[in-house]
Amino acid sequence: MTRMFTLAFAFLAVAAAAAQAGEFPAASPERMEARIKALAKFGANAAGGVDRVAYSPADIAGRAYIKGLMQELGLEVRIDSGGNIIGRRQGREPDLRSIMFGSHIDSVPGGGNYDGDVGVVSALEVIDLLNAAGHVTRHPLEVVVFSNEEGGLVGSLVMIGALKPAALDVVSHSGLTIRDGIDILGGDSERLAAAVVKPGALKAFIELHIEQGAILDEAEIEIGVVEGIVGIRWWDVTIDGFANHAGTTPMNRRRDALVAAARLTLAINQVALEMPGRQVATVGRIRAEPGAPNVIPGRVVMSLEVRDLELAKMEQVFAEIEMRAAKIADQTGTSIRFDLIDVDSHPEPTDPRLRRIIARAAQMYGYSYRLMPSGAGHDAQDLATITPTGMIFVPSRGGISHSPREFTSPRHMANGADVLLGTVLAIDQGALDN
Amino acid sequence: MTRMFTLAFAFLAVAAAAAQAGEFPAASPERMEARIKALAKFGANAAGGVDRVAYSPADIAGRAYIKGLMQELGLEVRIDSGGNIIGRRQGREPDLRSIMFGSHIDSVPGGGNYDGDVGVVSALEVIDLLNAAGHVTRHPLEVVVFSNEEGGLVGSLVMIGALKPAALDVVSHSGLTIRDGIDILGGDSERLAAAVVKPGALKAFIELHIEQGAILDEAEIEIGVVEGIVGIRWWDVTIDGFANHAGTTPMNRRRDALVAAARLTLAINQVALEMPGRQVATVGRIRAEPGAPNVIPGRVVMSLEVRDLELAKMEQVFAEIEMRAAKIADQTGTSIRFDLIDVDSHPEPTDPRLRRIIARAAQMYGYSYRLMPSGAGHDAQDLATITPTGMIFVPSRGGISHSPREFTSPRHMANGADVLLGTVLAIDQGALDN
Repeated sequence: MTRMFTLAFAFLAVAAAAAQAGEFPAASPERMEARIKALAKFGANAAGGVDRVAYSPADIAGRAYIKGLMQELGLEVRIDSGGNIIGRRQGREPDLRSIMFGSHIDSVPGGGNYDGDVGVVSALEVIDLLNAAGHVTRHPLEVVVFSNEEGGLVGSLVMIGALKPAALDVVSHSGLTIRDGIDILGGDSERLAAAVVKPGALKAFIELHIEQGAILDEAEIEIGVVEGIVGIRWWDVTIDGFANHAGTTPMNRRRDALVAAARLTLAINQVALEMPGRQVATVGRIRAEPGAPNVIPGRVVMSLEVRDLELAKMEQVFAEIEMRAAKIADQTGTSIRFDLIDVDSHPEPTDPRLRRIIARAAQMYGYSYRLMPSGAGHDAQDLATITPTGMIFVPSRGGISHSPREFTSPRHMANGADVLLGTVLAIDQGALDN
Repeated sequence: MTRMFTLAFAFLAVAAAAAQAGEFPAASPERMEARIKALAKFGANAAGGVDRVAYSPADIAGRAYIKGLMQELGLEVRIDSGGNIIGRRQGREPDLRSIMFGSHIDSVPGGGNYDGDVGVVSALEVIDLLNAAGHVTRHPLEVVVFSNEEGGLVGSLVMIGALKPAALDVVSHSGLTIRDGIDILGGDSERLAAAVVKPGALKAFIELHIEQGAILDEAEIEIGVVEGIVGIRWWDVTIDGFANHAGTTPMNRRRDALVAAARLTLAINQVALEMPGRQVATVGRIRAEPGAPNVIPGRVVMSLEVRDLELAKMEQVFAEIEMRAAKIADQTGTSIRFDLIDVDSHPEPTDPRLRRIIARAAQMYGYSYRLMPSGAGHDAQDLATITPTGMIFVPSRGGISHSPREFTSPRHMANGADVLLGTVLAIDQGALDN
C-alpha cells in the first residue's frame, strides 16, 4: 500500500525535481572524503578518531574550518545565540521560507570521524552542486551546524525554545558549563530566545546522518529513509529479596534477588524480542548487594531502557514487563519496583511526505533504500516539533559509532549527498505543497 | 539403617556414660546467659552486637576475661605460640590423650554475641558441671579458644601446622598483620611450630556452635549433629558478548552478555536446586560492562560459589553448570569462561562415630536432633585432619549470624552444653575405642 502511494505521489510532485536533478553533477566522493579528512584533524586522537567535545578548542577550530568553507561557497554565515552556525543561500522568491539542512561536528570523548560530520559535509556538498549548476532555488537554503549535539541536543533545543534553564549549569565534557560553552562559541546565553525559530517559520528540515546500526551495512542497502526517531524511557529497577549466608541457606529457602533479576532480565529481552515491531528493551547496568561471592544477594538494582517509534508501543512493552515482573516477584519471594527516570525523549516521527520524497529521490538516482527507525537521538527530533522534518541514513560499517572505528565509505557519503540534493530540490519545487 | 545402627552402638558403648550423666547437674541457662552477657561487653557496639575483631583491644580484653574464668574453674591456662588459649584439666590416667573442646570469641566487624562465644561458654559450663559433681575424667580435658577464627581459622591452622607463611603478612581487620596479631595475643609468630599438634596426639575434638542457618530454628529441633563442614570452591565467570548501541541494535542482532549471564545464573540455581543432595551454588557478585543503561553489555563478570560435603558432588555440580554454560554460550553468541579462585577449603566430614555419640547424648537428655551439614567454615574442619572430630549445633533464631541480631536462647545454649558434656563423658568412657 505504502509503496503504491509513494509511486503515485512521486509521479505528481517530484517529477519536476527528478528531471531537474539530471542537470546537476553527481556528488563527489573525493571532495567529501577530503573534507572529512580535513575535519578529522581538529581534535585528532591516537586511535584515529577525534576528541572534539563541544566547546573544546578542537570544536572551536573545527567550527572555524566549516565557517570558512561556508564562506568560500558563498553562504552568509551567522552564529545564533544558541551557538549554532547557520550558512544562508538566498532564494529567488524572497517571501518563501527557508529549507534547512545539516547536522553537527562535535563528538563524544573518543569519537569517530563520521557521526554528525557526514551530515555537515553532505550539506556543503549540496551547495557545491547547486553552485556548479548555477542553480538558484526558489526558497532560501540554510545549512546548519548545531552546537553540542552529543551533550544533549543543546543547539537544536535552543532553536525550538525547549532547552531547560537548569541545563545551562550542567558541566560539559569540555569542563565548561553549557552556559559558558554557548558563549565561547559566539552564542549569547543571556539571549537564547533570539535563536528560537517559531513553529511553521521553516519550510522543512532535513538531516543526513550515518546509521549507527548495521542494518544498511549488512543488507547492503544504500539509503535509509528514517521513519522517525525513537522515544526513550529509563527506569531504575530495584529487586528486594533477603541477603543470607551462601553456605548455610538451603537452595529452597532462598529469596535471592539476583535470581529474580535474572528472570526479569530474560523476561524483558523476551517481551521486546517477541512482540511484533521494532521496539528494543535493554538492561545495561546491574549491581547486586552486598555483592560478595559468599552472600546471597538481598538486593539488585538494574537499569531498564525501552525505545520505540510510538509512545503507545513503549507503554505496551512496559506494561507487559511490569506484569511479568509481578509474577516473578510472587514466585521468587521478592519485591520489584520500577522508578521512572526522566530522560525526556518522546518518539518523533518524521514527516510522511518527506519519507516519500526521500525514497523517490533515492529511486531517481538508482540507489536501494529502506524505511527504518532511528534508534539513536538526533537534532532532527527537535526540529520535527516545529517543521516538516526528514532524515536520510547512510550505512556505517558494522554499525559502529561513538568510536574511532566509525567508517562510512566515500561512495556511500556521495550517494547520501545526491539524495539530499534531490530531496531539497523536490521540496523547493513544491513536493510538500500538496 | 543409620538410626538402627546408632541405637545398637549406643547400647554397647555409651551405656556407661548415659548412666553417669544422670549424676551430673544439668547445665545452667542462667549462668551461661550471664557469661554471654559479660563477654558481650568487650567490644560492645551501638547495635547491641560486638566489634571484637581478632587482635583488637576488645579481643584482648575478652580473652583476659575467659582466661580468668578458666583459672577460677581450676584449669591450667597457657597460650600456645599460635595465640590459642588452652585451659587444661588433668585426668585420672596420666597416659591417656586429651579430649579437646571449644571454639572462638573473636567476631567479624559488626558481629553478634553468639557466633563462637556459645561454644566457649558451653565448654566452660562442662567444666563447671564436672567440678560440681566432683568428677575427674580418665582423660585430660582441654578447653580451647582459637585465635582469629573469623580472619581465616588462623589459630586452628597453626595448631595443625597448615597456616601458609604468606598469611602472616595479611593485614587483619584490627590493622595489625596476622604475625603481629599472634604476638600481641601472647603467641610467638617466630615459633609457630611449637603449637603444632601432631595427628593422633589428641583423643578427640568437639566444637559446639550456633547453626548460622534457620533449619533447626524453623523445624524447632534442639540439636544439630554435624555431618561435616562443606568444602567451598569459587570461580570468576566471564561472559563475553558484544557491546553495542542499545537504540540502534535490533533485538535479534544482539550478543548481550547480560542476557547470557541471566540464563547462566538461572541454570546455576536450577542445577543446585534440582540435583539430589544438599549442595548449594550462589552467584553473589555481578558486573556488566560498560555498564551504561543505553549500551548493550559486552562483558559480564560474576562470581560462582559451590559448596558441598563431598568433593565429588562439588565436581559434579560444576560439571553440570559448565555443560549448561557451553549451551548458553552457543545459543547467545557469547563465550563463557570459568576461572577457579583458590579458596583452599575442602569438605571435612566429621567422625561418623562421634556423630552417633552426639546423637545418643541428645537422646539421653531427651532433646530432638537432626543430622545436618555445616554450610559455614569452622575451626573443627582443621582439627578434623588430625583427630576424630565432632560438631554440635544449637539453633540460631532466623538463621541470622555475623550480625548484632544473632540470638540463641539460654535454654538452647544449656541443651547444647548438656549434649557436649554427655559427648565428652562418652568419649572418656571409651565410646571411641571400639
